[in-house]
Amino acid sequence: MSASLTSSPETIITELQAIVGDDKVRSDAEILLSHGRDWTKAHTPAPLAVVFPRTAAEVQAVVKLANQLAFAIVPSGGRTGLSGGAVAANGEVVVSFDYMSHISDFDPIDRTVVCQAGVITEQLQDFAEEHGLFYPVDFASAGSSQIGGNIATNAGGIKVIRYGMTRDWVAGLKVVTGSGEMLELNRGLLKNNAGYDLRQLFIGAEGTLGLIVEATMQLTRAPKNLTAFVLGVEDFNGIMNLFNRFQAEMDLTAFEFFSEQALQKVVAHSAVPRPFESVCPYYALLEFECLNDEVEAQAMALFETCVEEGWVSDGVMSQSLEQLKNLWRLREDISETISKWTPYKNDISTIISRVPDFLESVETLVTAQYPDFEIIWFGHIGDGNLHLNILKPDGMDKDEFFKKCATVSTGVFEIVAKFGGSVSAEHGVGLLKKPYLSYSRSEAEIALMRQVKQVFDPKGIMNPGKIFD
Amino acid sequence: MSASLTSSPETIITELQAIVGDDKVRSDAEILLSHGRDWTKAHTPAPLAVVFPRTAAEVQAVVKLANQLAFAIVPSGGRTGLSGGAVAANGEVVVSFDYMSHISDFDPIDRTVVCQAGVITEQLQDFAEEHGLFYPVDFASAGSSQIGGNIATNAGGIKVIRYGMTRDWVAGLKVVTGSGEMLELNRGLLKNNAGYDLRQLFIGAEGTLGLIVEATMQLTRAPKNLTAFVLGVEDFNGIMNLFNRFQAEMDLTAFEFFSEQALQKVVAHSAVPRPFESVCPYYALLEFECLNDEVEAQAMALFETCVEEGWVSDGVMSQSLEQLKNLWRLREDISETISKWTPYKNDISTIISRVPDFLESVETLVTAQYPDFEIIWFGHIGDGNLHLNILKPDGMDKDEFFKKCATVSTGVFEIVAKFGGSVSAEHGVGLLKKPYLSYSRSEAEIALMRQVKQVFDPKGIMNPGKIFD
Repeated sequence: MSASLTSSPETIITELQAIVGDDKVRSDAEILLSHGRDWTKAHTPAPLAVVFPRTAAEVQAVVKLANQLAFAIVPSGGRTGLSGGAVAANGEVVVSFDYMSHISDFDPIDRTVVCQAGVITEQLQDFAEEHGLFYPVDFASAGSSQIGGNIATNAGGIKVIRYGMTRDWVAGLKVVTGSGEMLELNRGLLKNNAGYDLRQLFIGAEGTLGLIVEATMQLTRAPKNLTAFVLGVEDFNGIMNLFNRFQAEMDLTAFEFFSEQALQKVVAHSAVPRPFESVCPYYALLEFECLNDEVEAQAMALFETCVEEGWVSDGVMSQSLEQLKNLWRLREDISETISKWTPYKNDISTIISRVPDFLESVETLVTAQYPDFEIIWFGHIGDGNLHLNILKPDGMDKDEFFKKCATVSTGVFEIVAKFGGSVSAEHGVGLLKKPYLSYSRSEAEIALMRQVKQVFDPKGIMNPGKIFD
Repeated sequence: MSASLTSSPETIITELQAIVGDDKVRSDAEILLSHGRDWTKAHTPAPLAVVFPRTAAEVQAVVKLANQLAFAIVPSGGRTGLSGGAVAANGEVVVSFDYMSHISDFDPIDRTVVCQAGVITEQLQDFAEEHGLFYPVDFASAGSSQIGGNIATNAGGIKVIRYGMTRDWVAGLKVVTGSGEMLELNRGLLKNNAGYDLRQLFIGAEGTLGLIVEATMQLTRAPKNLTAFVLGVEDFNGIMNLFNRFQAEMDLTAFEFFSEQALQKVVAHSAVPRPFESVCPYYALLEFECLNDEVEAQAMALFETCVEEGWVSDGVMSQSLEQLKNLWRLREDISETISKWTPYKNDISTIISRVPDFLESVETLVTAQYPDFEIIWFGHIGDGNLHLNILKPDGMDKDEFFKKCATVSTGVFEIVAKFGGSVSAEHGVGLLKKPYLSYSRSEAEIALMRQVKQVFDPKGIMNPGKIFD
């Protein structure tokens, strides 16, 4: 499928310069390194050049040129991906959206706003806030990730239980297909049943069908007085009971969990205090809009019920924005804190009700094979998404560690398949999960995906080798 | 694209009987008439036979047979469609899901339930209610429409502003593609970014890619103490101001509108009283969960603001379930009430902020061309979806009326195109909107849709001639 270079690098660069200008095509070592990979750092970047278009028309011209000269394109957003979806290791032309970060056409009645693909997530969040609204998709890399990349990977994060994934906030999408057609999909409409919703195909396609150049994003009412509980629980069934009980009565904005090991790491490496004295195997973080005194009383009553039922052994509720932020740090700082142990990371999901058995199966597998490995669990119980992290033991060689983890991966994905889960809950497939796609998708589905790609990208020039070969 | 019959009708019927049993293949005149069309009644039904499978495996066998013997299939749900999507007028085999109405595998933690394609919408709503939950997609035909058909047309309805369309409630989808492959798409997962989300393609594809045989449907918390305002407004800008103001502060579950003409028709033909004495050009129906006294006070304060601003001239708030139901009847009974005038109906949308200008443009057009025609407007302002109804003047011949309306259609769709709207907001394209698809979708998009169909239905046997030729 992947396009081979039939034109000389010099010709390609000259033609690219004719489209975007000399200074917007770069091939110095520094930029090839920075823009040739994402956060995975697992592959050696080797793009031919990095091009920085400023308009949708320039992007379209670049794609048409790629068809003509037969070079491959790798889209590049904030490069915060964790699956290698933005890696360019085979002489591709990287199309960066760094110079397409304009926000326009805000409408307060529609509560929509048009973003060029390179708008940073936080930039959109701030824009919404300035206009008394809210962009609810949020995650640790919001300060660097770009809207185009978020859409291409259908980014999830910490508020999915209430607000859904990026998919749910894309009211319109302007794309350039692999064959160079510019499509304006759905154009901001809330209700539109006029033919296939092709917009949905581009969301989560990781740039393999075409390039997202612009999106009309939906905003919503800003949440009021967000308030969080952190509750200590003895076992996973307790977490599920807790989840079930709260969800039946209240509209939660988040339901996260983390283990005592995760908590210990965070408090040992930052100024954030433990939430309370009791030590529990697991903790749940619940967040809701405390709209008024009645909601607060209801939340407290539910908490007390959960204590009486024996599901919760201790707990704390935030009383200020400061306390809310500190409780969130217990969960949000985990990833950065454990990064010094060069962790093996895996992002998997199952249906919510199977999470306890799923987690136990994975833990049993890892512990049996590598009893010395420390496992750090955290994730989004409210949507069945677990982040498995295995820390490299001090003194173990990095390569040896990752080699051992590779055997873990196969076992983990076998469990995922047994539980009908997903090999990639929110990080996408990219290069890293490609060998394991068949644990989540049937051969018939993968064959159909290949044919769908063929429709939009007949020459196979769009992010070749990602998701499937 | 449409498959021609190359096997004799007798052979086809015999082979179908071998799959589903003799009594589940019918070709008597009565069933050919009832199952060969939908609510549009615009085409003369002429299917070859109607087959009633009971299992997904039987459906798959029928599709494989269709590939082998080259006959076309038309899927048939509750046949409540308004675009002719379920019309079989060319000797097709109708596959009815009337005998596939089993609900199973309810899980209270996941809040999901597995429905065979023939489950009636109301059956699912009742099931949810029995389990203390809620299936929120609701519309006038909920007592007849089937889940499979709802998904195939991405049905919308009266609660879209809060709960979205059918698309948002499909956690998993079992389909048989046009080539006879059985796919299990997404399997109930809330987070799953492992490759293209093919489930989204089947939603809203009106049976042109394959047959939906089973769906895992998401349920949610039951709303509490639903309460409605009906407010009289002087002009459409007032409605928009009202909408904007309420939406900024509260989570509305509905925001509907109807005209004085619509109201007059309903109160003249039923026992429902006018909401209040004042006569206003338009009325808005707002619904929200009145969770506690504070929410009620907030709603009343917003209402008073709207009166002070001059947007609202009169209003009433429901104080009981009985009153809530009566207020809703003012809106929900319109369609049935006006059916005696054999109305021309059109289901169109634009972005919310453009609704006032859009409505005025359409009204100006119709009034200029046919000053004697009475226009009845109602619809879902909260999502930009208007239902245009033109009543047949008494004494005018039906054929003459619809001929005149056909010239209205072209003008209306030109306005739709000018406003960047949709020629079908929630009713789908089917046969009726097919000639107008290009007013909403570009030629490039339509060409891509055709190629996508080719991938899933290479022999063109699935609901041929619907959406596009």
